[in-house]
Amino acid sequence: MSVEAEVPTLCKPTVWFQNGKVMMLDRRKLPHKKVYVKLQTPEEVARAIEKMMIQGAGSIAIAAGYGIILALYRSRGSRKDQILKVAEMTAARMLMTRPTGQELSQVIAEVMEAVRMAISEGRDPYDEAYRRLKGIEEKYRRIAYQCGRNASTLLQDGDAILTHCFPGCALYYMLSEARKQGKDVQVYATETRPYLQGARLTCLTLKEAGYTPTLITDNMVGYVMWKGLVNKVFLAADRIALDGSIANKIGTYTIAVLAARHKIPFYVLGYEGPDPKTRTWKDMRIEERNPKEVLQCMEVRIAPEGIQAYYPAFDITPPQLITAIITHKGIYKPSQMAQALV
Amino acid sequence: MSVEAEVPTLCKPTVWFQNGKVMMLDRRKLPHKKVYVKLQTPEEVARAIEKMMIQGAGSIAIAAGYGIILALYRSRGSRKDQILKVAEMTAARMLMTRPTGQELSQVIAEVMEAVRMAISEGRDPYDEAYRRLKGIEEKYRRIAYQCGRNASTLLQDGDAILTHCFPGCALYYMLSEARKQGKDVQVYATETRPYLQGARLTCLTLKEAGYTPTLITDNMVGYVMWKGLVNKVFLAADRIALDGSIANKIGTYTIAVLAARHKIPFYVLGYEGPDPKTRTWKDMRIEERNPKEVLQCMEVRIAPEGIQAYYPAFDITPPQLITAIITHKGIYKPSQMAQALV
Repeated sequence: MSVEAEVPTLCKPTVWFQNGKVMMLDRRKLPHKKVYVKLQTPEEVARAIEKMMIQGAGSIAIAAGYGIILALYRSRGSRKDQILKVAEMTAARMLMTRPTGQELSQVIAEVMEAVRMAISEGRDPYDEAYRRLKGIEEKYRRIAYQCGRNASTLLQDGDAILTHCFPGCALYYMLSEARKQGKDVQVYATETRPYLQGARLTCLTLKEAGYTPTLITDNMVGYVMWKGLVNKVFLAADRIALDGSIANKIGTYTIAVLAARHKIPFYVLGYEGPDPKTRTWKDMRIEERNPKEVLQCMEVRIAPEGIQAYYPAFDITPPQLITAIITHKGIYKPSQMAQALV
Repeated sequence: MSVEAEVPTLCKPTVWFQNGKVMMLDRRKLPHKKVYVKLQTPEEVARAIEKMMIQGAGSIAIAAGYGIILALYRSRGSRKDQILKVAEMTAARMLMTRPTGQELSQVIAEVMEAVRMAISEGRDPYDEAYRRLKGIEEKYRRIAYQCGRNASTLLQDGDAILTHCFPGCALYYMLSEARKQGKDVQVYATETRPYLQGARLTCLTLKEAGYTPTLITDNMVGYVMWKGLVNKVFLAADRIALDGSIANKIGTYTIAVLAARHKIPFYVLGYEGPDPKTRTWKDMRIEERNPKEVLQCMEVRIAPEGIQAYYPAFDITPPQLITAIITHKGIYKPSQMAQALV
């Protein structure tokens, strides 16, 4: 990876533990300001996750892990049973923050396993959990890179791809690899209302990496396809079921329906692949957030008082609308998704 | 129309001639402020139209008509050939403002016909053109009412409809008529980026008329249909071709594709019906506006510097995706659209 020197802001750590505090990049302030916030308590970490200071299923999970690390750090010197109790309460709190992404429960389970092992074997639970979490972080980085590299084989010189929301760093790795392969690829990014992750995070990341993305509003996807301006879709998933259905940022399903109509391949950057406990989309929970966020844009009220709003944060895309799911291991048809576990 | 007393702001005149000036409600300030702007010259009227101080194909056309009235008013006392020349130059300027809507050229042609007749028959061209324009305004109001009343027959008690952008006052008349018929109808409105006409204008109009609309972001349409929350689509068209295809606010085509997939009827509030000079969508011109408007929301910059944006203001929906087009005369299948002219 020769481009390591120009790694975009969001493909470097955005949450870490330092001097007894959790440091977190406030993504809500991007792209205009890079503000790193000091979180003093596990509850502050949980609220930061809920308020979308951080986003993306993998990043949210790592942040929750640091919430447990913080609780363990603050409990050092306490009795073992008390430490375990505090860690378990913190884990339960973290699990409640965002229900849709699949990594959250996995990371929390791994960190808690490290805590329990350390306690039962007489080692420092803080040290052990911290090491475990750093290992997961490094594994996630490798998975993102390998997923992106695998996806790059699907690109051809002259492609114009559409992406939605911020699909994480697999997009960046995919484009970097494609560039090394001599492929020139153009990117259209949806703005992704209401939080504008596409306009704010994806466009920032691509710009930092030396690309010039074209921003469109979410309602332009149909026209852009109708005009033949894009020929492939690449986006991520917050949860992948064993049947190949996905939950991802609201708007993904709409894009999938349009792509199918226009015979445009619809690819999912699937990172580690399916969640083994999620058989179908019926096992997924779609988070509904505060409608207030739809009634405003960049914190400016857009609608009159006295009306309602609805804010499902994700939607479901069925396997029939998905061309392939790319993981760190390879490229899978949705119907083969369960095989990616092996 | 017993509800005349509570007519919403946008279903009362929003542009008129007064004391030698054109008065115009600045719709960009809605729903937060009702600001009426005094336009002193035809060029100011043209720029107000271009900058979307007014919107909607019919309203734009009326505003352009007042631009010509203003030019005639300011030329009173000049020689007839000079008056005609000023009127023609103003008409040409007005025609350039917004290319997609069908009423603009029709209204300008009618007003200019009145000017030429008055001049050739020795009457006051200002008086004659003003009377003609007032007649068109009254005709448009009747057409909106009759279109809405015809559309109301398609509604059933318990319906939940989806609308997009601000479809004009036919929506208000449709719902008012339905209410009189004892039908309780719920409305979902897309916010309609980038200018948020749905959030700002449609929600205001419905709220003023005593409804409680539910606002969604444009990318939620697929999910709302997938969940079965809406069972009919009603929106307007800026231009209708004789083959039954329409141009309407960007995002309309996406909604039509989704409606077809979900077997949800897709109805067009077609007001006066097709433009006789527009045979198919190939005769339509899709306006592309300044990409800056996509890079910001409510005048707040949302994206980083150094990226591109794309802003087609309209899209095309083909007849195959349209269930029916409702005009002041009746309800037509798109394939019968040419018959609505007779």
